[in-house]
Amino acid sequence: MRTYRLGLEYDGSGFQGWQRQPTGRTIQQVLEETLTGLYGGETITCHASGRTDAGVHALGQVVSFRAETPRDPDRMRLGLNTLLPPAIACTSMEIAPDDFHARFSCTGKTYRYVLFCRRDRSPMAWKRALHVRVPIAWAAVEEGLAALEGRHDFSAFRAAGCSAKSPVRTIHSARHLVLGDEHRLEFTGEGFLRHQVRRMVGTLLDLGRGRLTVEEFQAILDSRDRARSGKTALPDGLYLVEATYGGR
Amino acid sequence: MRTYRLGLEYDGSGFQGWQRQPTGRTIQQVLEETLTGLYGGETITCHASGRTDAGVHALGQVVSFRAETPRDPDRMRLGLNTLLPPAIACTSMEIAPDDFHARFSCTGKTYRYVLFCRRDRSPMAWKRALHVRVPIAWAAVEEGLAALEGRHDFSAFRAAGCSAKSPVRTIHSARHLVLGDEHRLEFTGEGFLRHQVRRMVGTLLDLGRGRLTVEEFQAILDSRDRARSGKTALPDGLYLVEATYGGR
Repeated sequence: MRTYRLGLEYDGSGFQGWQRQPTGRTIQQVLEETLTGLYGGETITCHASGRTDAGVHALGQVVSFRAETPRDPDRMRLGLNTLLPPAIACTSMEIAPDDFHARFSCTGKTYRYVLFCRRDRSPMAWKRALHVRVPIAWAAVEEGLAALEGRHDFSAFRAAGCSAKSPVRTIHSARHLVLGDEHRLEFTGEGFLRHQVRRMVGTLLDLGRGRLTVEEFQAILDSRDRARSGKTALPDGLYLVEATYGGR
Repeated sequence: MRTYRLGLEYDGSGFQGWQRQPTGRTIQQVLEETLTGLYGGETITCHASGRTDAGVHALGQVVSFRAETPRDPDRMRLGLNTLLPPAIACTSMEIAPDDFHARFSCTGKTYRYVLFCRRDRSPMAWKRALHVRVPIAWAAVEEGLAALEGRHDFSAFRAAGCSAKSPVRTIHSARHLVLGDEHRLEFTGEGFLRHQVRRMVGTLLDLGRGRLTVEEFQAILDSRDRARSGKTALPDGLYLVEATYGGR
């Protein structure tokens, strides 16, 4: 029995998220079915660093699985990129230590939320960014980002059905980057609660539109009350950029 | 009768190009049908700065048409962006001088060809770039680009069915830009022959892969013989970035 580690990219717009569902196509299902074929019919179960929601993209998802049948990782990577649909690609595959588990071994993650900011919608940004038509006060958004950095109880930005034992998380950095009409909000932390990034972005946009002051934004974070935070931003703009393990 | 000028963006991957065809969906057909609806049933005929091929994208296509029914351009732009499919967007609309014609008044164009250069394919670049797996000698490509600048007979890079009267064109600039794994070849000129950019890119890639020397590349340009140039690069990576009129 060998343990493998995969690097995965996907355009999540045509999928019901990572995790297998009773109905609808998911990344896990397509990947497991493809791997089962490549491993001569052996049933393969995959674990991801985190379960991305329906419509969320990944540039650096990490997946682990165990298999009996011996296979060369380089040939398997090529096989996956031949057999997987165009919306999913494998960017790395290697044999991992026996105790490696993509979810439980993960020590940090980076998420990017992409905002496409101009008057008219963009065909190229469709399903890949949130279209923002109104002017945004970016200085206020950056103050909000600074307030999110550090170790906090993030209950205010938690999804209703979130099952995490503790709502306390550490955000190492929360940054704003600009590339033309594209604005990126990038969050690196030890881990995130369900919908946390999308709820933080929704509330940061309220701040940027002048619906909240920086003091009110801080008060929402401090309140630990999810009824007070803003809307959950659409999945379209969210990208899992990196999952880290161990020291890095 | 008023003349209108539109700015148009499209993801060309789901279309048989700009021009109406006996079968298959085209940008012109979808735009004209939508405009006819917005102009109360008046038949609208659109002219584009150039007829992009099937699969080619546009970030700055310019379109003109004439209509009897008076309409406010701002309201029409909003109407178009509500009614057009997500793959097409209108970024500007204004009333133009009576003699404005998007094709015949056009004095220059910029095309970008996007190459996605890494070992494994990318879901995000699918249908939006040419995937290049092999190492490219960019310094050689840049010498080839420099050779293309200026006024030349571009017969060597002309499509078999090209109907232009003269094969002589001026390329004002031919540049190479790098953004991470994305390499852009950008051409600005007074106009281009059918398939010229894609054939130049195909031949530049032969140069970058060491299949041609810079001297051989120059000899192909000088030969005016299309049998000697490289493959026509896939439409996936080609973008009409800008069409210019008059002084600019």
